[in-house]
Amino acid sequence: MKRETLPRSAPSASGVAGSPPGRWQLDRIVAELRVSREETHSIRRDGEARRAPSRDALEAILNGLTEALFPRHYGQSDLDGENIDYFVGNTLSIALDSLSAQIHRGALFVGDELEPGFRREEAVELTRAFAAQLPDVRGLLINDLRAAFVGDPAARNFPEILIGYPGMTAIIHHRLAHLLYRLGVRLVARLMAEIAHARTGIDIHPGASIGSGFFIDHGTGVVIGETAIIGDSVRIYQAVTLGARHFPTDDEGSVIKGDARHPIVEDDVVIYAGATILGRITIGRGSTIGGNVWLTRDVAPNSVVTQATARNSPGGGA
Amino acid sequence: MKRETLPRSAPSASGVAGSPPGRWQLDRIVAELRVSREETHSIRRDGEARRAPSRDALEAILNGLTEALFPRHYGQSDLDGENIDYFVGNTLSIALDSLSAQIHRGALFVGDELEPGFRREEAVELTRAFAAQLPDVRGLLINDLRAAFVGDPAARNFPEILIGYPGMTAIIHHRLAHLLYRLGVRLVARLMAEIAHARTGIDIHPGASIGSGFFIDHGTGVVIGETAIIGDSVRIYQAVTLGARHFPTDDEGSVIKGDARHPIVEDDVVIYAGATILGRITIGRGSTIGGNVWLTRDVAPNSVVTQATARNSPGGGA
Amino acid sequence: MKRETLPRSAPSASGVAGSPPGRWQLDRIVAELRVSREETHSIRRDGEARRAPSRDALEAILNGLTEALFPRHYGQSDLDGENIDYFVGNTLSIALDSLSAQIHRGALFVGDELEPGFRREEAVELTRAFAAQLPDVRGLLINDLRAAFVGDPAARNFPEILIGYPGMTAIIHHRLAHLLYRLGVRLVARLMAEIAHARTGIDIHPGASIGSGFFIDHGTGVVIGETAIIGDSVRIYQAVTLGARHFPTDDEGSVIKGDARHPIVEDDVVIYAGATILGRITIGRGSTIGGNVWLTRDVAPNSVVTQATARNSPGGGA
Amino acid sequence: MKRETLPRSAPSASGVAGSPPGRWQLDRIVAELRVSREETHSIRRDGEARRAPSRDALEAILNGLTEALFPRHYGQSDLDGENIDYFVGNTLSIALDSLSAQIHRGALFVGDELEPGFRREEAVELTRAFAAQLPDVRGLLINDLRAAFVGDPAARNFPEILIGYPGMTAIIHHRLAHLLYRLGVRLVARLMAEIAHARTGIDIHPGASIGSGFFIDHGTGVVIGETAIIGDSVRIYQAVTLGARHFPTDDEGSVIKGDARHPIVEDDVVIYAGATILGRITIGRGSTIGGNVWLTRDVAPNSVVTQATARNSPGGGA
Amino acid sequence: MKRETLPRSAPSASGVAGSPPGRWQLDRIVAELRVSREETHSIRRDGEARRAPSRDALEAILNGLTEALFPRHYGQSDLDGENIDYFVGNTLSIALDSLSAQIHRGALFVGDELEPGFRREEAVELTRAFAAQLPDVRGLLINDLRAAFVGDPAARNFPEILIGYPGMTAIIHHRLAHLLYRLGVRLVARLMAEIAHARTGIDIHPGASIGSGFFIDHGTGVVIGETAIIGDSVRIYQAVTLGARHFPTDDEGSVIKGDARHPIVEDDVVIYAGATILGRITIGRGSTIGGNVWLTRDVAPNSVVTQATARNSPGGGA
Amino acid sequence: MKRETLPRSAPSASGVAGSPPGRWQLDRIVAELRVSREETHSIRRDGEARRAPSRDALEAILNGLTEALFPRHYGQSDLDGENIDYFVGNTLSIALDSLSAQIHRGALFVGDELEPGFRREEAVELTRAFAAQLPDVRGLLINDLRAAFVGDPAARNFPEILIGYPGMTAIIHHRLAHLLYRLGVRLVARLMAEIAHARTGIDIHPGASIGSGFFIDHGTGVVIGETAIIGDSVRIYQAVTLGARHFPTDDEGSVIKGDARHPIVEDDVVIYAGATILGRITIGRGSTIGGNVWLTRDVAPNSVVTQATARNSPGGGA
Repeated sequence: MKRETLPRSAPSASGVAGSPPGRWQLDRIVAELRVSREETHSIRRDGEARRAPSRDALEAILNGLTEALFPRHYGQSDLDGENIDYFVGNTLSIALDSLSAQIHRGALFVGDELEPGFRREEAVELTRAFAAQLPDVRGLLINDLRAAFVGDPAARNFPEILIGYPGMTAIIHHRLAHLLYRLGVRLVARLMAEIAHARTGIDIHPGASIGSGFFIDHGTGVVIGETAIIGDSVRIYQAVTLGARHFPTDDEGSVIKGDARHPIVEDDVVIYAGATILGRITIGRGSTIGGNVWLTRDVAPNSVVTQATARNSPGGGA
Repeated sequence: MKRETLPRSAPSASGVAGSPPGRWQLDRIVAELRVSREETHSIRRDGEARRAPSRDALEAILNGLTEALFPRHYGQSDLDGENIDYFVGNTLSIALDSLSAQIHRGALFVGDELEPGFRREEAVELTRAFAAQLPDVRGLLINDLRAAFVGDPAARNFPEILIGYPGMTAIIHHRLAHLLYRLGVRLVARLMAEIAHARTGIDIHPGASIGSGFFIDHGTGVVIGETAIIGDSVRIYQAVTLGARHFPTDDEGSVIKGDARHPIVEDDVVIYAGATILGRITIGRGSTIGGNVWLTRDVAPNSVVTQATARNSPGGGA
Repeated sequence: MKRETLPRSAPSASGVAGSPPGRWQLDRIVAELRVSREETHSIRRDGEARRAPSRDALEAILNGLTEALFPRHYGQSDLDGENIDYFVGNTLSIALDSLSAQIHRGALFVGDELEPGFRREEAVELTRAFAAQLPDVRGLLINDLRAAFVGDPAARNFPEILIGYPGMTAIIHHRLAHLLYRLGVRLVARLMAEIAHARTGIDIHPGASIGSGFFIDHGTGVVIGETAIIGDSVRIYQAVTLGARHFPTDDEGSVIKGDARHPIVEDDVVIYAGATILGRITIGRGSTIGGNVWLTRDVAPNSVVTQATARNSPGGGA
Repeated sequence: MKRETLPRSAPSASGVAGSPPGRWQLDRIVAELRVSREETHSIRRDGEARRAPSRDALEAILNGLTEALFPRHYGQSDLDGENIDYFVGNTLSIALDSLSAQIHRGALFVGDELEPGFRREEAVELTRAFAAQLPDVRGLLINDLRAAFVGDPAARNFPEILIGYPGMTAIIHHRLAHLLYRLGVRLVARLMAEIAHARTGIDIHPGASIGSGFFIDHGTGVVIGETAIIGDSVRIYQAVTLGARHFPTDDEGSVIKGDARHPIVEDDVVIYAGATILGRITIGRGSTIGGNVWLTRDVAPNSVVTQATARNSPGGGA
Repeated sequence: MKRETLPRSAPSASGVAGSPPGRWQLDRIVAELRVSREETHSIRRDGEARRAPSRDALEAILNGLTEALFPRHYGQSDLDGENIDYFVGNTLSIALDSLSAQIHRGALFVGDELEPGFRREEAVELTRAFAAQLPDVRGLLINDLRAAFVGDPAARNFPEILIGYPGMTAIIHHRLAHLLYRLGVRLVARLMAEIAHARTGIDIHPGASIGSGFFIDHGTGVVIGETAIIGDSVRIYQAVTLGARHFPTDDEGSVIKGDARHPIVEDDVVIYAGATILGRITIGRGSTIGGNVWLTRDVAPNSVVTQATARNSPGGGA
Repeated sequence: MKRETLPRSAPSASGVAGSPPGRWQLDRIVAELRVSREETHSIRRDGEARRAPSRDALEAILNGLTEALFPRHYGQSDLDGENIDYFVGNTLSIALDSLSAQIHRGALFVGDELEPGFRREEAVELTRAFAAQLPDVRGLLINDLRAAFVGDPAARNFPEILIGYPGMTAIIHHRLAHLLYRLGVRLVARLMAEIAHARTGIDIHPGASIGSGFFIDHGTGVVIGETAIIGDSVRIYQAVTLGARHFPTDDEGSVIKGDARHPIVEDDVVIYAGATILGRITIGRGSTIGGNVWLTRDVAPNSVVTQATARNSPGGGA
């Protein structure tokens, strides 16, 4: 086996006074890591200890909310007319309590994101506002489910879509994260979106606004940017990007944050696999964008846009 | 922090009679979710409670079957000539019992998929037929393993491929799911395929028919459709789509389901990263399809097809 | 339900002597799997039992090392100036002990990779050399974090990036795996890279050399090959491939392993989504490669390369 | 170290044909255990496989029922007026479903205990009858709790008793197990009693009939037999036995089962530590039985019975 | 099977309007349990929701503290001079954080036990005072360990005692619980004592004061009361009670709480199995109390007290 | 709340230089515990780090062996003629591998117990000798089971005894631990006995020799000493002690270890609850020892020994 000669710790460090240095030289590494932490703390406003939101907790919250929305498909126990409301109420209660705690942690952790002195009561209030929207979210998701059934020739029944399709998982997560985003709970919303991304390969920024009856088929590699606006009854395939075209930079070369920079996709549009749509352009209603198309200009309603090399082929699903 | 003013529950709802509404107004949300469920039940034939197959159980089944097929690579314990058969037999027994139960749940849950009155004995019989094919599946997977070793210049040994490569994970899952698909166990097969998709980013419909010595390198974004037919010794790279070109719709605009609509790929074909191949076309044996190629027509045997902008460059692996 | 008639076990097999064959015919399947294992053992040099490295253990090691590097973001407990070093030291100690054991298993398992007779002491020495580099790795990762903040208009704060961004997860894993790769611990390094791949959809071979301030945005579908060399301050978007162009084969048609065959990307380069860059070419410093570009030739410093159909549009992020 | 020379397997057994016997000679041990099982099956009426009730499941059921009865003391989550009923209903639902399944297993496993052909519906009916009594059980337990507070000088508050006292744990378990015993669910009831025994050192047969306001202090070593009858407001200390005096045997020397053979303890009796009370005798109301007393005769109401060596000392608690 | 006819819910209740009553009639049971809770709330001062200390958390705290005191015997990982302090510090930190939280919960839960308005900072301060005593506790426990080794003829080495002996477990738990008791943290202390009781069958009230070099052999059934005082080098066997003789009652018949009512046992006393010692008496130093002795009077120093029937036999250990 | 003023850390320690001492003053406590450990290491021969056997591992081993002996009663899965041997073989293999490792740890940890330089191969050999006896152990346990059924009027069937009775649990554990004890594996054997003690309240030293058809009813508080010898068909009730009478001490006052000092109980003896039998005496075959009897002299065959106050009452079971 060939190995490079890596710079190791100087022999004198461990050999001084002939004392055995220990198996891993833990003391030295721990000290160096402490120095490294202290140096980088300058990027934070103070050295005070704060806890980041827990990704594990957020995963449990998303699971709990999904079980409460679709108890017969995701819930573990045998649910019928007698016990289903108890399950839903109890599952919701646990998820909302935990969400409230994570919102509080997130707000304190980031600090510069919410008002100073963000209080636990405020996290409770935000969670309550979130909870009140859940029935509406369920209504939207039922429409997404119908859209998937209608749009995928391989779909044989609703349960298959609800339990199995990554596009369904992604939109469930997104509609929950988006609610939080609109309430200003941005760190938690973003982390939820990344959980969905890790689970499905579909990366939807929680800021994106998405209408009713939305369906992503296959989904791996889809990216939808923060300021994208998507109408009703839109269908998207794998590896589609709704991205930004330019990243305007400030005088120091840092990108300027927050501007509307992603596409507007109107109702009844279909975008096939691998299409890349960039910038604050508008895809007019009823249009079809072919696979692998690269698009940076507005498209009139009811257009069909395809690759030069594949004009007459709008396909690209599976 | 700027927050939008979201429509919340009307104040009168919680303020009536001055009674405290509780932390989350659980009663109201639970009731609204119940109403929402009842409305959507109209899309099911009856209101009877049925349990969906459990994704956790299916993950455990797939893990168990994989351990039984490759006990020294996936099994936890120290296996040698003395105890290996006990491990294999016990692991198989647990996995098959559980599979039989999930097949039963899946059949009852979907209802319209298998004959009415699907019985537990039938699930047992299907599982037994599945189990009898496992040694043959192992033989196919060994060929896939050899194909990976031969085809990837970065592969140094078999264990690395078997444990580490997502393409190997995907084909193990697919060959198991495909067996079930052929036996008519479609919901379970589909859910297994989506588990593989979530684990690897490779989305192979369990209906796809794949020959011996198949290798997918890197794999993220690969999509292979339900009616695709792939010959022996085929090699595919990341983000390749074998998809449908047109989705014929019926009078109501719903896509028609079940037709043969995905490509046929003959023996000894290589398809480089990002190629998109659509429709019931045939890629003749021994052909090479270059990276990012968009292809909707038959290709004669031993062809080399590349992008117009990169004619002489069939590469695209890593 | 239509089902194919699968070849099942011959009726005579189970019907002989009228004895009930058991639910799954376990004995027969176990025996057939044993025969299958014995046939394929010919591809190994001996029949001796050896344990593969455990993927679960490697996941725990990666989690532990990440917690030790960023204890306030990944660690579970409430850490402050008093207890943080105890947490770091204890977490490191457990992770390094386990890593040492996995290195030993990996070396024995593969056999042909390290010298014959690889001893436990040698695994300890390799682990110690690895551990000594951890503070430097942290320094590099802080630069990666800053690069992400500067480069992504949607990024609002450091914690969001550190906890949430898959590109950050991928580079943390890569920098750890790469250290091991350079020490010759290739099987473990490769398995760690595949864990990162499964978690993020980003596939970086542990052999790839990556400079300071590296940022991958979105990331799904990124593939970076074994011999790629990336300079400082490079930014990459989803679905970018830095791959090989040709796979030279030997007389038997097997690909030749180990040659330098992937691109060199110099400092300050940006590569937008979906670009495919193949072969041992050099992208000169300060260049911008547009989305979906297919590139197999050297690029001079400070070039802007875009698709023919989208000349003036280097965009492609989200 | 001195070690006896144990009879090991004969050398010829493992040495035949020079074949290596394996590490543990598993095949031989497994075969011998199989022979042993087959021999002892003669004590069962048939060789059919049946599953015993699961002790783990019964422990979970007892925990669930206890949480439903005292949700603020045993329940995990933060319960208030809003969510407490959801918690109780959901917890009950899970526990009762599981209890019903265990009752069914128990009935089938034992076979000779319940009517032949015991059906799942019958288990459901028994569980429903059990469930209907739970509110009454709670009322009894509240009286037990009050009795403990009044009777123990070290008790400072109710929660301490409810969460901490083994006597409280034992009576909660007993009242639940006794309900099942009265419904004829004897195997499950007995197993529940043994779970209580293992948790507390207090061994109350589920058949024992116990009145209101019962308190056992310390409790280790208490034994209360199957046909014991205990009135209201009885207090018992550690190591008290309410046992049988004679075990009448049949012609074959086996003890005859089922007769009333344990004491009757009337209302307002106190029995101090270590007292042994045997046979179908009656302890009259208001009596006090001193520590370590050995008693096999009826006791008139309001008696004080003490050891000869300690006549004037009825004490014995702590 | 004979079953009693239990009073079930009246048929009219479930049969009204012919509506199906559900499997378990959950709504009715939940409602009845709510009524039962509301009735018993009158025994608490207010209806406010408060969380009881968690027994699981207290078990984890006791385990963590024990691991920190004896890391090589109880700690999970491979500890040596290099990493042992990191393990100890981290384990302590987690245990103390959790203890502080449980103290806070306990104080709020009981309410009447600590001052009104008990604050989190006060719980921290109490925990800090507790922590500062841990090294002294370890010193005491080492003496207990030596006493066990000297006193038990079956003891062969220290590890056997430390890991295996219930008497050692009991005294470790007691010394920790007693520290808390002295700090006024009574509910938590009491719950810890009951955890020890459940684990060992040894019931020592946390209020009991126990000197150095204490050893309990076998231990099942030992009861030591709240106000007992035990000197140095005392040895006790199974089923020994140091209890109260009289429980003085107030006008309402409730026992009066808090008085000194348990024995004082001076240095170098041995008490054999089953001895019952009751009341505020003093066992003079150097005395031996024989097995099964019943004792309610003072004993002069260096006495030997035995049963009448076994005068010359002080034995009783095993 | 009244609290004692505990000696806390001197104020100067934490107040020097006004530096904040941290929440728990971890550094100081960790340092003091280190000093305490170093002082007590003098009781060990060297300071080398060694790992104690793991109680968790031993519990899992005992569970595994019990499942292998009685797979239909303790095993988790659905076992029938087809899969039962696979379950048994796999469960045994895991348990024996782990036992071998624990034997090795135990031998190295204690050091003075087995020969110096105890090797892993020796642990394997001991485990193999242990394993070979398991079928015989099963035969003995079946006899114990029959004895329980015959002896307990409350026993209704075998499963109830096998799963539920603590006496059955205790004898299963004892027969396994005794095998190890006879092979010289004393620390592991002792720890197993204490696990049984904790689970059942029955404390049988692994050295005790117990014949066939042994039954302990109720069992809490039973103590059987190291050198006790028990014949066939013996029945024992709760709180029986078979102990030592005198503990001869050496010149330094330490008890002398290892002598035969516990009773011999011949065949067909019954010993009722609370009897205390001390010293190397012999209870002749066919005798009955009444409840609470205190016995330190030989008893002729077929005797009936009762308390003076209860001559004619040999009862005491429940």
